[in-house]
Amino acid sequence: MKKLLFGFTLILGFSGGALGADSLVSEDSETCIECHASLHPGIVKDWLKSAHAKVSPAQALNKPKLERRISVEKVPEHLANKAIGCAECHTMNEGTHQDSFEHNDYQVHTVVTPNDCAVCHEAEARQYQKNLMSKARTILLENPVYMDLMTQINGTHRLEDKEIIVIPPNADTNADACLYCHGTKVEMEGLKTVDSDMGEMEVPILSGWPNQGVGRLNPDGTTGSCSACHVRHQYSIEMARRPYTCSECHKGPDVPAYAVYQVSKHGNIHSTHNKEWDFRAVPWKVGKDFTAPTCGACHVSLLVGEDGEIVAERTHQMNNRSTWRLFGVPYAHPHPKSSDTSTIRNKAGLPLPTELTGEPVSQFLIDAKEQQQRRDAMKTICLSCHGNGWVDGHFERLENTIATTNEMTLTSTKILITAWDKGVAKGLEHHDSIFNDVIEKKWTEQWLFYANSARLASAMAGADYGVFANGRWYLSKNIQEMLDYIHMRE
Amino acid sequence: MKKLLFGFTLILGFSGGALGADSLVSEDSETCIECHASLHPGIVKDWLKSAHAKVSPAQALNKPKLERRISVEKVPEHLANKAIGCAECHTMNEGTHQDSFEHNDYQVHTVVTPNDCAVCHEAEARQYQKNLMSKARTILLENPVYMDLMTQINGTHRLEDKEIIVIPPNADTNADACLYCHGTKVEMEGLKTVDSDMGEMEVPILSGWPNQGVGRLNPDGTTGSCSACHVRHQYSIEMARRPYTCSECHKGPDVPAYAVYQVSKHGNIHSTHNKEWDFRAVPWKVGKDFTAPTCGACHVSLLVGEDGEIVAERTHQMNNRSTWRLFGVPYAHPHPKSSDTSTIRNKAGLPLPTELTGEPVSQFLIDAKEQQQRRDAMKTICLSCHGNGWVDGHFERLENTIATTNEMTLTSTKILITAWDKGVAKGLEHHDSIFNDVIEKKWTEQWLFYANSARLASAMAGADYGVFANGRWYLSKNIQEMLDYIHMRE
Amino acid sequence: MKKLLFGFTLILGFSGGALGADSLVSEDSETCIECHASLHPGIVKDWLKSAHAKVSPAQALNKPKLERRISVEKVPEHLANKAIGCAECHTMNEGTHQDSFEHNDYQVHTVVTPNDCAVCHEAEARQYQKNLMSKARTILLENPVYMDLMTQINGTHRLEDKEIIVIPPNADTNADACLYCHGTKVEMEGLKTVDSDMGEMEVPILSGWPNQGVGRLNPDGTTGSCSACHVRHQYSIEMARRPYTCSECHKGPDVPAYAVYQVSKHGNIHSTHNKEWDFRAVPWKVGKDFTAPTCGACHVSLLVGEDGEIVAERTHQMNNRSTWRLFGVPYAHPHPKSSDTSTIRNKAGLPLPTELTGEPVSQFLIDAKEQQQRRDAMKTICLSCHGNGWVDGHFERLENTIATTNEMTLTSTKILITAWDKGVAKGLEHHDSIFNDVIEKKWTEQWLFYANSARLASAMAGADYGVFANGRWYLSKNIQEMLDYIHMRE
Repeated sequence: MKKLLFGFTLILGFSGGALGADSLVSEDSETCIECHASLHPGIVKDWLKSAHAKVSPAQALNKPKLERRISVEKVPEHLANKAIGCAECHTMNEGTHQDSFEHNDYQVHTVVTPNDCAVCHEAEARQYQKNLMSKARTILLENPVYMDLMTQINGTHRLEDKEIIVIPPNADTNADACLYCHGTKVEMEGLKTVDSDMGEMEVPILSGWPNQGVGRLNPDGTTGSCSACHVRHQYSIEMARRPYTCSECHKGPDVPAYAVYQVSKHGNIHSTHNKEWDFRAVPWKVGKDFTAPTCGACHVSLLVGEDGEIVAERTHQMNNRSTWRLFGVPYAHPHPKSSDTSTIRNKAGLPLPTELTGEPVSQFLIDAKEQQQRRDAMKTICLSCHGNGWVDGHFERLENTIATTNEMTLTSTKILITAWDKGVAKGLEHHDSIFNDVIEKKWTEQWLFYANSARLASAMAGADYGVFANGRWYLSKNIQEMLDYIHMRE
Repeated sequence: MKKLLFGFTLILGFSGGALGADSLVSEDSETCIECHASLHPGIVKDWLKSAHAKVSPAQALNKPKLERRISVEKVPEHLANKAIGCAECHTMNEGTHQDSFEHNDYQVHTVVTPNDCAVCHEAEARQYQKNLMSKARTILLENPVYMDLMTQINGTHRLEDKEIIVIPPNADTNADACLYCHGTKVEMEGLKTVDSDMGEMEVPILSGWPNQGVGRLNPDGTTGSCSACHVRHQYSIEMARRPYTCSECHKGPDVPAYAVYQVSKHGNIHSTHNKEWDFRAVPWKVGKDFTAPTCGACHVSLLVGEDGEIVAERTHQMNNRSTWRLFGVPYAHPHPKSSDTSTIRNKAGLPLPTELTGEPVSQFLIDAKEQQQRRDAMKTICLSCHGNGWVDGHFERLENTIATTNEMTLTSTKILITAWDKGVAKGLEHHDSIFNDVIEKKWTEQWLFYANSARLASAMAGADYGVFANGRWYLSKNIQEMLDYIHMRE
Repeated sequence: MKKLLFGFTLILGFSGGALGADSLVSEDSETCIECHASLHPGIVKDWLKSAHAKVSPAQALNKPKLERRISVEKVPEHLANKAIGCAECHTMNEGTHQDSFEHNDYQVHTVVTPNDCAVCHEAEARQYQKNLMSKARTILLENPVYMDLMTQINGTHRLEDKEIIVIPPNADTNADACLYCHGTKVEMEGLKTVDSDMGEMEVPILSGWPNQGVGRLNPDGTTGSCSACHVRHQYSIEMARRPYTCSECHKGPDVPAYAVYQVSKHGNIHSTHNKEWDFRAVPWKVGKDFTAPTCGACHVSLLVGEDGEIVAERTHQMNNRSTWRLFGVPYAHPHPKSSDTSTIRNKAGLPLPTELTGEPVSQFLIDAKEQQQRRDAMKTICLSCHGNGWVDGHFERLENTIATTNEMTLTSTKILITAWDKGVAKGLEHHDSIFNDVIEKKWTEQWLFYANSARLASAMAGADYGVFANGRWYLSKNIQEMLDYIHMRE
């Protein structure tokens, strides 16, 4: 242990002696680090670069309100004057964690949850529950339509008697696919004994692990994973503000926000000049700290202008400035009122926020007034760098794109219904999956890939993506191919 | 106003007192900034980082010729000794701007045009008119073949009587798609009154706004938008030299120059070592300021060698070193002589630079001698880092790729004609669109996506893109599918 | 020459006088630079930034063993105390280079080979011969199945008598496509006289040039090109460690390692925080020098932990920690024992490492014990930042993904065989290509694109790529389309 401790003192930059009263690191966390600095050097060194290691909650609370990164007014006394280290987070809220286990006389839990973070970051945790992402797992799994889609994608396809049999995907497959982003359910299934450099250890067996999906169901019953965006263990605000974090789940053709951003002028400015930006300043000053928005600037961060006046409030609800849910399932529509969309039913009884005609299921969605407020809030950010005419023109085009791409989806839906009517494919009336026939898959791509892409390209001004890369070219071509398919098969 | 002015003095870094005689900023621009620093802090702060804010034209003219960023020998006296700020550009060339409006006793125009920039950057504006990009809007809109293509892509498709009816796209849709890069037509349609923090204001209603497309038709009758590449309001030469700027319009599968660059060795060197490069040096010294070319290095920038000798002249014509127009419509061909390609007609009377057989319409295209001169000029740049054998080998392969991909396009054209002959699709003879049938769309992808991609991958040595990502794999597969389609439908 | 020499002294930073005894640069290399600094300034300036220019082998050998970048214990005396410059490498191993030619009284060879580099980097050159990449050219060209695939992709397709005739690709086409990465054969075909600024010169005519493919067949009979990853002439270890180098050949849909990495959390951390990393430190210290792995960290680099203990040995074999060959041809399988896979034959006599059923051809592949050792070696790296449960969970999912994607390939193979049986396509029994029919191309995409992508997404935790971008969505859709195709054609 002596050698390890010596290593540790070197890490913390002490030239001699044991960790003294001066150290921000609590004795409990010191105990963790004594072994883990050697076992998992990457984690410990990363954490040492974090604000958690360098600033105590009490010091954080001493900052002017706009500069604070914690949202409570008071933190529990035993945490106030110490670094937020291993022991603080992994023993937080003792008694609430189903994955808690005894580890060198501590009750430790592996999975740190939004409820743990909320001890200091209460507002963020609360806002996040209004974010659809916090329900990303249940939105998927409790919706029979989406479950059907997931099964047809991830299921193992076998050829039996010249027909395709789809074996539903196992938990590992889903965790490696949809639930990687949407979130797994993590539970402790027991303990197992492992050999380690420190001797035999009992460690938990966790199902659904690893996972950092945004809607993860945690062993303490909470949903979400803060480390989805605030990557452990440095938790740099820079990372959350960079577009790369969002790109982990928003680059593919279904919701290609990052792909669009890359070819937008904003993305171009970020790529070229980000090295001159200050990604760690709180609040984030427009023009001074950054000269073009990242995802975080428009959707999450606290922005201020020239004289410190607030341009945008920090929000982890994230849809506060989003008028439309551009992501069509299968049509774009006003944002849902609640992040729990599992109760939505359209007239046909389907758990979808629009009818198959595109008509929104209004009672579950925000109204025109709320839409206007959100649009105005977003425009306030745009106006930091653009004139009124520019901004209004931009949003008029987005409205037009939503209308025309919804119509392109409607046309494809009509063709699909024709296919069902003609028996070219089997749909709802045959109690068959609506995602397994060739033409049904084409219909899915119409809204999931092409309409979504054209809308995101419009919303974020990245036209190069929205035409030939993954947008209007295919939106039109697909309609011709769907109709052609019926002619061939009938 | 006092508070704003105080804010402004802080921005400019003065420790006290009003803006004095020392300030480079003109009184007129000061007046703009007094309000706009608070209204649009992003713009003002960005501009403060620009050379326009820091160097007067007179100072710029004092530099040795090779180091100059302005191309006139003399600037109008009233501009010579001041920063080039808001008022300078947005009131430039009074009387020529259809979008001019009265704004706090100034005649201001929103849309700054190449003609405004030409007051100091005359050579660049002049050269740019020889660049096909300056005509990108008219090339598209005045060519019936391309208009047909644009309509079939962007038009709203409706199902009526089991047939697809294509409603031509509206202005907003085109502005959000093709014309985002090609350029809209911007016109003032009148004035409207808006509320602002400064009280009621009359502001112009601009059609086709916002837009920064390379071939934009401006309210002063000029074409182009310098800010397409020189992003307002920092106008950093670094940004224009970075590949990200070009990627805004040249990443998609139709002209994937940036996608190819990314996987080329040049792109790799840029990605790894750009942080050690000097992107702002003028002239740009090979090996010292940068160690691998970006798009700008080969096509635009003034490059010098070890002893200051010129390796490449600066050009905004950009095709000076381009032997071939790799972008096939539908075949690659020698570069057009004039940037205005709207007068080109092939033997069949179509507005295309080649026959449907691939034969170039020579009278409109540069001849073999001009091709050789351009190839030699490009090779001079290559030789900065490569030996003769390397460079010659590279260009021989490009010639081979042009020939073979043109032949692959020809084969697809023959199959398309077969389809028309057999009635599997309706083409020119039926006065039907040549871009709406399924097999016609496959033919379009053959040249627009796959042949273009294979050629760009060859030209810029990014083979990974040109085989499986978007090249030869599809070039071959598509031919089999086109022929197969005829067998299925006949 | 005076002017050139003067330029050269400036380059090297001497304020006056000729190159003295102090210079590390040998007289021979000085002679080269006298002309080439002016002829190819980019190369020379790039080299001046290299360790080769700054550190002599003797100095390099003086470093502690873990810090050394050369692997021999002794270098030839004439090289020991000089910079490794132009003359050193391009005249190394005189008499062994078929492309050697007389050039200003030196016997110079253009193509520097692994055998030349091995004079100082012996272990790396030796290990690399166990790397499949060193045989990338022969693996392709000596395997009739792959040759068939290459011909069907790169061949020129002509329409004759309503049938497609495939003209085998010429050398330039292959060099511009598959062999760009796999490697060409480079041979001197003779000499030619060229004019240069220095007068007439005799220079070699090299076939297959330029090329830096990983399996290049060199004029001295060796295979490989160190500059594929260690880009000339700076040879920065940073570049080899950056993911961009690997992306040159591993981004496309066939083996999209870089595309997956980009959307993984590791890639996100690299994109955000790489500017704070030390890419040049040897050994590479986990957590200190870098906080997330790049390709090199897991597969190549010498990694050490907190106290300098070795986490991973440096290896240029690169598959030492790879349990499976994820790249399916057509199924994923245990890694081949030997890098020369040309002798592999399955039961059906095909030169493939698996049967068409997916069963591995075990005698040519590593056994379960070796697999376990390699997996454990990889896990050791993971454990630097992750706990046991995390790491075990990750690798269990990968095993599951390999099994399920192999099964999805098997299903597609069964459909293909059905197609052959029904005469919908012509396969092996008809002595026809198995890559030319439409359904055969779909089968190829099943394993080459979609199964590979899903596996890489699983292996590197970049799920966004493995579902909709290029993975499970298509893996399922393709099966439905293949079966549907048979129904349409029969």
